[in-house]
Amino acid sequence: MNRQIVLIGRPAAIPGPEHFELRTGPEPSLPDNGLIAETVALSVDPAMRGWVSAEANYLQPVALGSVMRSLGVARVLKSADPDWNEGDLFYGWTGWQDRVAISPEAILWRVDESLAPPSAWLSVLGLNGLTAAKGFAAFARAKPGETMLVTTAAGGVGSIVGQLAKRSGMRTVGLTSASKCDLAHDRYGYDIALDYRDVDLAGALDVSCPQGVDIFWDNVGGEIADLIFPRLAPGGRVIQCGTASIPSWSPWPEGPRRERDMVVKRLTWSGFLAFDGDDHANEAALATLRSLVAAGELNHDEQCMVGLEQAPAALAALYQGQNSGRIWVKP
Amino acid sequence: MNRQIVLIGRPAAIPGPEHFELRTGPEPSLPDNGLIAETVALSVDPAMRGWVSAEANYLQPVALGSVMRSLGVARVLKSADPDWNEGDLFYGWTGWQDRVAISPEAILWRVDESLAPPSAWLSVLGLNGLTAAKGFAAFARAKPGETMLVTTAAGGVGSIVGQLAKRSGMRTVGLTSASKCDLAHDRYGYDIALDYRDVDLAGALDVSCPQGVDIFWDNVGGEIADLIFPRLAPGGRVIQCGTASIPSWSPWPEGPRRERDMVVKRLTWSGFLAFDGDDHANEAALATLRSLVAAGELNHDEQCMVGLEQAPAALAALYQGQNSGRIWVKP
Repeated sequence: MNRQIVLIGRPAAIPGPEHFELRTGPEPSLPDNGLIAETVALSVDPAMRGWVSAEANYLQPVALGSVMRSLGVARVLKSADPDWNEGDLFYGWTGWQDRVAISPEAILWRVDESLAPPSAWLSVLGLNGLTAAKGFAAFARAKPGETMLVTTAAGGVGSIVGQLAKRSGMRTVGLTSASKCDLAHDRYGYDIALDYRDVDLAGALDVSCPQGVDIFWDNVGGEIADLIFPRLAPGGRVIQCGTASIPSWSPWPEGPRRERDMVVKRLTWSGFLAFDGDDHANEAALATLRSLVAAGELNHDEQCMVGLEQAPAALAALYQGQNSGRIWVKP
Repeated sequence: MNRQIVLIGRPAAIPGPEHFELRTGPEPSLPDNGLIAETVALSVDPAMRGWVSAEANYLQPVALGSVMRSLGVARVLKSADPDWNEGDLFYGWTGWQDRVAISPEAILWRVDESLAPPSAWLSVLGLNGLTAAKGFAAFARAKPGETMLVTTAAGGVGSIVGQLAKRSGMRTVGLTSASKCDLAHDRYGYDIALDYRDVDLAGALDVSCPQGVDIFWDNVGGEIADLIFPRLAPGGRVIQCGTASIPSWSPWPEGPRRERDMVVKRLTWSGFLAFDGDDHANEAALATLRSLVAAGELNHDEQCMVGLEQAPAALAALYQGQNSGRIWVKP
């Protein structure tokens, strides 16, 4: 029998446990040229909000009644593909379930347990790390001494990109919740960590970024971004990695126009998805991450929730910022 | 005696003749290491609105009571600089006046009358051409067959950038006033020219850009830009060259948030000013323009208004879109 978490309702904004159901299905059968694998670590990602909404964005919506889309690490049980053997571990589109029948195209890359445990391959060596390293390499144009400001600085992406920026000789300023400021500073190396709910965040930003913000790595958008744009330095780069602060795009929200800042300050604003297929950039980013992890030079933290049935609650905890470290589910 | 147009009031939005005054000053005296020159063609530019506003943007505001800042072509009368001789022509920061005492740093480049008449050096071989050629080279990442949409397609910059895009093998769609659609199509080579005031502009855009917009060269911002963003193709590039449709930034206007489009469509949005000092990029852009003009392969149009005293009215005509071709003033 195969336990699966199935999407049963579409949230208006943030998904919660009420939108999912635990179902027990039959054992999967081996696909032609594919694999059957047992999941060992399942991912819980901010992007899931977009995947379960009715509107297609960069991926088709998850269909109602089907297994929740997720990345995961799984161990091969049976293989009809000569590249994969029983016992091999991979990172790929497993879905929230105990066992998965998967074609090789849905596998992202091999997992090497000797480098880091499976759960690390969901985070610092998975999509979070790839997002941080690839976006930073592609768009930051970092110069030593410049100031980079990161929103959700203690999150899966922000904690990594802050460390990469610091290694490039930048000053790093991170925004996070009050309870995670010490973590952002002490463990992820931010020179300054600010509470994003500070009643005088504008004043705190002025003090923290006296020369303005050269690189704005934004995971949230919205009102926080509205505070940063006026503080961007000429030649500034904005890297839009997510829009976590905006619960819904229907109706489409309004905000201050950016056109004038773009021209007068000669800004470059880049949006990106780590999924974008540039194999060379992916390989370079992953090589950087693997060597840093192997050398113990990239701090990362995890929080495990045990039991497949915990996955919807883990997702809700993620959106409430209750997690401490990158959350994952052990089925 | 030296006639000068002086700024006497700050407009809340669009400058008009009431904000200027014709004054007669003394003959200028030769600066140390500088030049005295006689203006032969004076520029009238959309950017002047920003230069006369109280708020500094990329240049300090023009001081009340001082000569209106402008670019112009002038002929050297006296020189204390060995690089410049009597009779030489240059393009530089002359201001709206008959004669100018100028230091060599305020000169942009030499004017070669054998290539094109002085007025052309204000437009296609001046800041307009430089803006179009430099911005296109730096940010468009043009691919044959892609669609570029240009606002103010019949204007000083739009007329040139459309021709450059066409030469790169792109489909070009231009927005302009109804009376200039034929001009944009027939003379500036736009595949499709649309009336930006069309009551069903959205529908016209859908028909004209069935695959979406790959490059959006925007001189206006505002509500027109709000129609284009949802029609940008994945990987689209937005080049923000101006914000002509927005009369005032106080109070700061609002519009649809762009964060989601930036991420989901992996957009790159670049703002720039042709002033930005990259000598290599400037030389490359100017060389392109000069060779195209010399070969007669770049159409450009001018409208001359005679008499220094016409300059404020020429500026007002520019903002009302009454001009036909790049407007300039012969003192």
